[in-house]
Amino acid sequence: MLSAAYMGQRTFTIGGSDEPEPGPGQVAVSVAYTGVCGTDLHIYHGDMDARVTVPAVIGHEMSGRIVVLGDGVEGWSVGDPVTVLPVLSCGHCAACLAGHQHVCSNLVFVGIDAPGSLQQTWIVPAQLLVRLPAGLALMPAALVEPTAVAVHDVRRSGLVAGETAVVVGGGPVGTLIACVAGNAGADVLLVEPDAFRRSVAEGLGLRTIDPSTEDVTAVVADATSGAGAQVAFEVSGAAGGVATAVDVLGVRGRLVMVAIHPKPREVNLHRFFWRELTMVGARLYDRSDFEMAVDLVATGVIPVDTLISRVVPLSEVAAAFDALESGSGVMKVLVDCQAGSA
Amino acid sequence: MLSAAYMGQRTFTIGGSDEPEPGPGQVAVSVAYTGVCGTDLHIYHGDMDARVTVPAVIGHEMSGRIVVLGDGVEGWSVGDPVTVLPVLSCGHCAACLAGHQHVCSNLVFVGIDAPGSLQQTWIVPAQLLVRLPAGLALMPAALVEPTAVAVHDVRRSGLVAGETAVVVGGGPVGTLIACVAGNAGADVLLVEPDAFRRSVAEGLGLRTIDPSTEDVTAVVADATSGAGAQVAFEVSGAAGGVATAVDVLGVRGRLVMVAIHPKPREVNLHRFFWRELTMVGARLYDRSDFEMAVDLVATGVIPVDTLISRVVPLSEVAAAFDALESGSGVMKVLVDCQAGSA
Repeated sequence: MLSAAYMGQRTFTIGGSDEPEPGPGQVAVSVAYTGVCGTDLHIYHGDMDARVTVPAVIGHEMSGRIVVLGDGVEGWSVGDPVTVLPVLSCGHCAACLAGHQHVCSNLVFVGIDAPGSLQQTWIVPAQLLVRLPAGLALMPAALVEPTAVAVHDVRRSGLVAGETAVVVGGGPVGTLIACVAGNAGADVLLVEPDAFRRSVAEGLGLRTIDPSTEDVTAVVADATSGAGAQVAFEVSGAAGGVATAVDVLGVRGRLVMVAIHPKPREVNLHRFFWRELTMVGARLYDRSDFEMAVDLVATGVIPVDTLISRVVPLSEVAAAFDALESGSGVMKVLVDCQAGSA
Repeated sequence: MLSAAYMGQRTFTIGGSDEPEPGPGQVAVSVAYTGVCGTDLHIYHGDMDARVTVPAVIGHEMSGRIVVLGDGVEGWSVGDPVTVLPVLSCGHCAACLAGHQHVCSNLVFVGIDAPGSLQQTWIVPAQLLVRLPAGLALMPAALVEPTAVAVHDVRRSGLVAGETAVVVGGGPVGTLIACVAGNAGADVLLVEPDAFRRSVAEGLGLRTIDPSTEDVTAVVADATSGAGAQVAFEVSGAAGGVATAVDVLGVRGRLVMVAIHPKPREVNLHRFFWRELTMVGARLYDRSDFEMAVDLVATGVIPVDTLISRVVPLSEVAAAFDALESGSGVMKVLVDCQAGSA
């Protein structure tokens, strides 16, 4: 079977090997599609070489079917369509004991800290499997994982129907958050400077704001009779995005910090005090987020056709990263990992 | 009757006038004591001259007795001991309609935006009166207002018994927060570089950390078996205090932003993401906070004797501000506003 291994220095090697066999409690999954996310791109750029041991098979946004059951695996059958919750928790740290296994202090993220799904056959612990409905095609199912991120982010916001939510950043995660928040009954405004991404969002019926030509705070104030938004999601990763997400909030507004800001950012703490704002960090997801994400993808709430910009075969995996890196005109890029695909 | 008017440029004028008469719905209160708070000091320094119209009678931490009832005032009698909730809300902005009158967009803060209690007789709307128990002396009762701030801050934290709370900043408000949090069952650690303030806190049985000689994060980690604190209060107003308050928190920890930071501060947003931290702003209080504060002062939970460093007569009001300004060896300074006091 083929696998793509990150070798460092923006390089992948495609190699063949014998079919791996699952150990006790594991299954072998025939991977159909693997999406490439921003973290994968960071790895490709070498920014995470301190954490990733090369050669590294990465990838964690996936869909596939079970092909072999290891000893002791119950409740699953060969042929079952699945995705994987790529989080292994220790079970005994303070976070785990408090029920927050997804932010476990000893977390193993499968696809970064353990082998991922950029291969034809992937061995995973059965406990991480998430069942997919029979009627859901495997290409859209590869968007379940990023949708689970968006579900978690919206859940962390405490959003209720009728509230106004501003999403700062219109990449794949920001657009998914906008879709999930809209489905939950929010009036959504998406802030994004890139014209292509705005056009994607507008095609989905979302209201957009171009921060390079519009006064975002004024537009949000107009849209809320001067009160400001109840919820903002900072998904841009930019200093200006943080400022915008704080500025658009009304009294007691809630800001969800989704983006990764490697360096400290200036934050208007006086506004937090004055308006009694709340900021919550949001990281990953738990099983309930995944299960809701499966429903949202399967029922068509998530506009998968619009979001999937390109599909490349596993043998040309670097092209997927290069397409994502160029940024222009691209939302989600999938790698087709199926044996026999071009 | 005498009153002290801030005239700008670090100057007060003491003047005499006729006894004022309450209008309909108002009462005249004979002021016993007025505490000087950090905001009053900002006014004295001229930092709030854009907001304050001189001559300005400021002051809002007070105790006293009703001396005259205006027309239509019911439920109160001459001689009743009272303090005042110094917040007038508009009732029709988004904050008020959402039940958050204390962060009203059109808030009138009595003692800044309207005349305050640095005078012998103060006219206030009866709706702002807060009843004091007969057995509570009027000097400790002057600490009800800052205690209400602390009650509000602890309430905003969602603190529950058994949690570890780190208070960054050991001035009067920080020490009151430590007392209120401790009374709520928290294991409290107070971070304060000033030796006098640490000694005050230690005298109250609080554990203190000197950030100038100790590794605060390491001490908190030790005290929490490595997990970090569940709650932190940033009361220092310093950039380093913000960093400390973020660094000491464990997974899903909550940071309450109490201090006023006039300029944006650098915040480790990655840690908010990674540990799913929460930050909430906390401003002022509502009537329920005041009522709990009355109970805490009346039942001796608040160590008023330790906190009141000095009492000066109204005729020497500038000395109160100068004492507070010097900082050294001072916690709370009260102004004795009683007619006939020295």
